[in-house]
Amino acid sequence: MFLGKVIGSVWATQKETGMENLKLMMVQPIDTKECESGQVVIAADRIGAGVGERVIVSRGTPARILFGQGNAPIDAVIVGIVDSFEVAE
Amino acid sequence: MFLGKVIGSVWATQKETGMENLKLMMVQPIDTKECESGQVVIAADRIGAGVGERVIVSRGTPARILFGQGNAPIDAVIVGIVDSFEVAE
Amino acid sequence: MFLGKVIGSVWATQKETGMENLKLMMVQPIDTKECESGQVVIAADRIGAGVGERVIVSRGTPARILFGQGNAPIDAVIVGIVDSFEVAE
Amino acid sequence: MFLGKVIGSVWATQKETGMENLKLMMVQPIDTKECESGQVVIAADRIGAGVGERVIVSRGTPARILFGQGNAPIDAVIVGIVDSFEVAE
Amino acid sequence: MFLGKVIGSVWATQKETGMENLKLMMVQPIDTKECESGQVVIAADRIGAGVGERVIVSRGTPARILFGQGNAPIDAVIVGIVDSFEVAE
Repeated sequence: MFLGKVIGSVWATQKETGMENLKLMMVQPIDTKECESGQVVIAADRIGAGVGERVIVSRGTPARILFGQGNAPIDAVIVGIVDSFEVAE
Repeated sequence: MFLGKVIGSVWATQKETGMENLKLMMVQPIDTKECESGQVVIAADRIGAGVGERVIVSRGTPARILFGQGNAPIDAVIVGIVDSFEVAE
Repeated sequence: MFLGKVIGSVWATQKETGMENLKLMMVQPIDTKECESGQVVIAADRIGAGVGERVIVSRGTPARILFGQGNAPIDAVIVGIVDSFEVAE
Repeated sequence: MFLGKVIGSVWATQKETGMENLKLMMVQPIDTKECESGQVVIAADRIGAGVGERVIVSRGTPARILFGQGNAPIDAVIVGIVDSFEVAE
Repeated sequence: MFLGKVIGSVWATQKETGMENLKLMMVQPIDTKECESGQVVIAADRIGAGVGERVIVSRGTPARILFGQGNAPIDAVIVGIVDSFEVAE
């Protein structure tokens, strides 16, 4: 997983099967000093993450498992909203 | 998933099984300011994305799920055509 | 897998199904001279890795296999605590 | 998938099960101006791609699907030989 | 797959289930001029690769397939020891 910050939302009317009723957020990966670190990822959100919140994002088939037998072609999901993190100096 | 811009098409006559009748588009990943961000990806398109449009691309096995039990060796698919996106400053 | 150093922990109360009771560590990938090398990864830990320890992290579906038929959306796991490594000059 | 140029071949006598009788090509990822773009990938070729040809390479489990139930540990396959591509300015 | 050079070994006593009796090598990805190219990968070796040898490494689920139904959380395996490779100028 990676640490990210929710920076926005994206909308698409014309889409593939399995993409209906999904909330898609733009997540900027950040480092432990909360600086940008790598390319923005579009992740599905089912736990109510809001813009500005720090989140944990999982990717690939392990993330897709949350959609069970369905055909949602989702390769990134917000799996946690960060309360806090602690990094050793 | 990542945000991209459709920049072109690619054609191949000699190809693997499972690659028949697929429309393959070249997608340039972009950042939230629509600047280029990373290497071009060749993605299958089944929803009619056109050159110049901003799209959402899914990758890996989660993307391939759209092709069901078939043997299409597809690792990237355009899953949405972006209407709009909103990014917090 | 990659070589990393455990640098901290992360906590999330609001989370996806399958994320309960997991210890999540922040792991900094390092090179053979133990210098930082790439973006921090959040990995699940079930073997008691502590901050400062060097670990081996596996990613993707091969890592998730440790969670069996469950629905844990985990894409990175600490699979070993490094005793030592030896690199040829 | 990515766009690449076949730049050579690689041979290995001592190998894992499932690697027998495979033609392995070295493919340099290229951008739309045909400049080098990223690290060389070793891909299996079953469609007769030759050195100098531009090809489409698929990766991961979606690529491996071409080998069916077998145990070929192949994570990259040449899935098309490019006839032409067109990129908008 | 990628081309790499075996540069060392790593040992771990405390480890996850499925990691027993595995020989883990550190592999430096190299380019066609044998210069370092990217981050070191820890790969399982079952074919007797030695330090200094050039090898082919496969990653992800396609690599893990070599471990069959077991629960080895292995995401990288040395699948061939390179005899020679040939690159066009």
